[in-house]
Amino acid sequence: MADDDMTTSPPLNSELYKQIVAVTGPSGVLTGTDASSRSCDPLCITPTLAGMIVRPADIEQLARVISLCARFNQPMVVQGGRTGVAGGAYSEPDDVVISLERMNKIEDICVASQTAVVQAGVTIEALQNAVQAQGLFYPIDLGSKGTATLGGTIATNAGGNRVIRWGMTRQNILGIEAVLADGTLVSSLGRLLKNNTGYDLKHLFIGSEGTFGVVSRAVVKLVPLPSTHYVAFVSVASFDKVVALLARARRLPILSAFEVMWSDFYSLVAPDALSKGPVAPGQPYYILIEGLGYNETADQMIFNEFLEEALASELMVDAVVAASEKQCQDFWRVREGTEAIVREMSPFIAFDVSVEIPCVEAYLSAVREALCTPYPEARFVTFGHLGDNNIHLGITVGPHTHDVAHHIEQLVYAALPRFGGAITAEHGIGQFKKAFMKEQKSSGEKEVMRRMRAAMDPARLINREVMF
Amino acid sequence: MADDDMTTSPPLNSELYKQIVAVTGPSGVLTGTDASSRSCDPLCITPTLAGMIVRPADIEQLARVISLCARFNQPMVVQGGRTGVAGGAYSEPDDVVISLERMNKIEDICVASQTAVVQAGVTIEALQNAVQAQGLFYPIDLGSKGTATLGGTIATNAGGNRVIRWGMTRQNILGIEAVLADGTLVSSLGRLLKNNTGYDLKHLFIGSEGTFGVVSRAVVKLVPLPSTHYVAFVSVASFDKVVALLARARRLPILSAFEVMWSDFYSLVAPDALSKGPVAPGQPYYILIEGLGYNETADQMIFNEFLEEALASELMVDAVVAASEKQCQDFWRVREGTEAIVREMSPFIAFDVSVEIPCVEAYLSAVREALCTPYPEARFVTFGHLGDNNIHLGITVGPHTHDVAHHIEQLVYAALPRFGGAITAEHGIGQFKKAFMKEQKSSGEKEVMRRMRAAMDPARLINREVMF
Repeated sequence: MADDDMTTSPPLNSELYKQIVAVTGPSGVLTGTDASSRSCDPLCITPTLAGMIVRPADIEQLARVISLCARFNQPMVVQGGRTGVAGGAYSEPDDVVISLERMNKIEDICVASQTAVVQAGVTIEALQNAVQAQGLFYPIDLGSKGTATLGGTIATNAGGNRVIRWGMTRQNILGIEAVLADGTLVSSLGRLLKNNTGYDLKHLFIGSEGTFGVVSRAVVKLVPLPSTHYVAFVSVASFDKVVALLARARRLPILSAFEVMWSDFYSLVAPDALSKGPVAPGQPYYILIEGLGYNETADQMIFNEFLEEALASELMVDAVVAASEKQCQDFWRVREGTEAIVREMSPFIAFDVSVEIPCVEAYLSAVREALCTPYPEARFVTFGHLGDNNIHLGITVGPHTHDVAHHIEQLVYAALPRFGGAITAEHGIGQFKKAFMKEQKSSGEKEVMRRMRAAMDPARLINREVMF
Repeated sequence: MADDDMTTSPPLNSELYKQIVAVTGPSGVLTGTDASSRSCDPLCITPTLAGMIVRPADIEQLARVISLCARFNQPMVVQGGRTGVAGGAYSEPDDVVISLERMNKIEDICVASQTAVVQAGVTIEALQNAVQAQGLFYPIDLGSKGTATLGGTIATNAGGNRVIRWGMTRQNILGIEAVLADGTLVSSLGRLLKNNTGYDLKHLFIGSEGTFGVVSRAVVKLVPLPSTHYVAFVSVASFDKVVALLARARRLPILSAFEVMWSDFYSLVAPDALSKGPVAPGQPYYILIEGLGYNETADQMIFNEFLEEALASELMVDAVVAASEKQCQDFWRVREGTEAIVREMSPFIAFDVSVEIPCVEAYLSAVREALCTPYPEARFVTFGHLGDNNIHLGITVGPHTHDVAHHIEQLVYAALPRFGGAITAEHGIGQFKKAFMKEQKSSGEKEVMRRMRAAMDPARLINREVMF
């Protein structure tokens, strides 16, 4: 924000800049290298091209800044923790970035109603730590939780590892406050679980990737902090048995994760994450099964009974239960150990598809078949949240051009409709998947989406390059 | 649909009538007394005033009928099972009613993915029975389930007794198909739990009370059929203890209902529903606590441990656990025994408010205080799904005018904003609560609702008198 910076990288409109600074104070605006040095992508350094990053300190400043931008017909890009991998935070030189980073207070935690009122710029980890101190738990669990913000996870309807028990971000939000692209404040901050008083507006904003407005605050729903933790690591001989095991696991009320790793994943990651993998190699599937509960004796009983019955029914080849919290963490390190993938597979193309559960293996076969002729050298790494239909797939063909990457994406996505699939389960469309979404949505869906966006942001001022 | 009927009650537009019959066949259209004899209200006989009830047999007929109505600028009212108590199914003489009753097939039940594809006219009970035969469970539990249809419960986001565990209808729907007011077919029938591919359109239609279009089909999410069932009936000496007991009950992963009855309810209903109430009278609160699980030994252990600890902590005065499935049903009959209320309290005014949990008792005091001067004779009956914030309140002042009823409604609703409340938790706005909603929503909320409706049904042809 120094004058020097402004000289080298002048804000788009000096009158707008002046009026914004009058609202936020000079510390509320970043320009020059203070702005450009911020990467918009967690995986590769991507400078912020927008000439100005505005950081309102509260909801009043936010609404006034957005009203000003609207009056100047100024395109805006909204940024949370910039951990998204779909390009949703990317900006152009003629954008103004609005960052919620200074709106980072947890305003209230109510133990009796198990709710909290939280500003959009609070990180998921900060929220989790604060509510944990009160015996409560915010169940959204993401690798990027130290940086990802509540606002960003609401805009993208973030998922993660525990969706099978507690749902996506959508299921954990009770109320919302947002500012539309013209500065209209929409306050819908109820703490009520049940409320059929008109349209449920939070669901409009959740998962809209910032295309309707900027989420400024939310009421989150909390659950009692679990006091028991069980993790098993098992190997399975066929996909049919994986599906049967999932059906049985769903009868565990404490089930909190069912993470499937294909052998291409396990053989690459396990030796790297642990000196010795939790179970013997040589099987096609490995699964991390987690339970989080509240009663040591009963939870241990049902978790062990489930595993014993599954072994007796020959649904599993091998199973080991973590004997300590340390070992629970070790098992999770296998599931989350991406270092070996980055090291051995780079450059790779990452996918986040959803497929109907019974069709997952058929879908993967179709993908491998589609790729084998044009790319015989293709290597895969496959894992996912199977109970949520979500398969993460990494594909490498060695160093490749952008056209090759695009061609591989086309092949991977083209196989989806046959299996009831979707091109993104949790990462969202952002800027990167727009073209593919257009191909896969029905005409009615596209018509409704177009009408909704036109109703909320007719001038397309907010996140104009995002989604469609 | 006989010619005689048509003579006495001619359809609104004979050309439209002719074209609709050409689409649906004569059996697809009811007129005259076949139409008028259908009540739009489950509580009092309210004839269908619309001259014509159209009953499409499939999605193609539905879309064509709606397109025809749109071309003739013909207002439409959508009807499901007509069990709603907010007047959402009421029609005027110049309306055409569209009934989904002939679209009543369960098209598919998939055990592996625990989903079903269901037409809108299927009743909740028929759906539950069909999936139960496959070892699955659709957890929405309503008194009117024998008549209420899936489409109607989607339009109203129906709740019921087990929201605390499985959420409202919204949380149990994966995909939706609908027809907009201009006939546009919106097919978004995915079976995926996780799908962030663009806006999640099902959430637009769920709870919109038919103001965006007609839901024709849905994919429902199922859970494994529970195999254990525990019901306790307890009495509690103070509201603080009720809240503390609820917090402990939330640590039961098998908790499926936490139904609070105030002494005004218990003293009226219990002697009527059972020869002897489950627990001794004389306490201010009575609670039915239910667990549904999958492991006899473990579930019984945690349910009993929970009760023993609550007794030892003096959170409860008395507690009895149902010793048989028959006794489980008996305890539920106390909770659902409305005959005594109808007999002793009629005419009464029924409320379905939501209030922040810690404020429930303060809210009820405020209501009693507001009513005691103008209506010293007022009597109350109070019960609800406390974990969901939902309090059902019946008030009688004896025979009264419409103005008195309206005045009492004003007083009951006026106290809500102070306690973070809402005028309807699960019944919806319909035609009856429009004026009150207008008073209680923020200006930003009203603006967004207005824009959404204008985008989906600019001519306001569908359910024009509903919601706002």
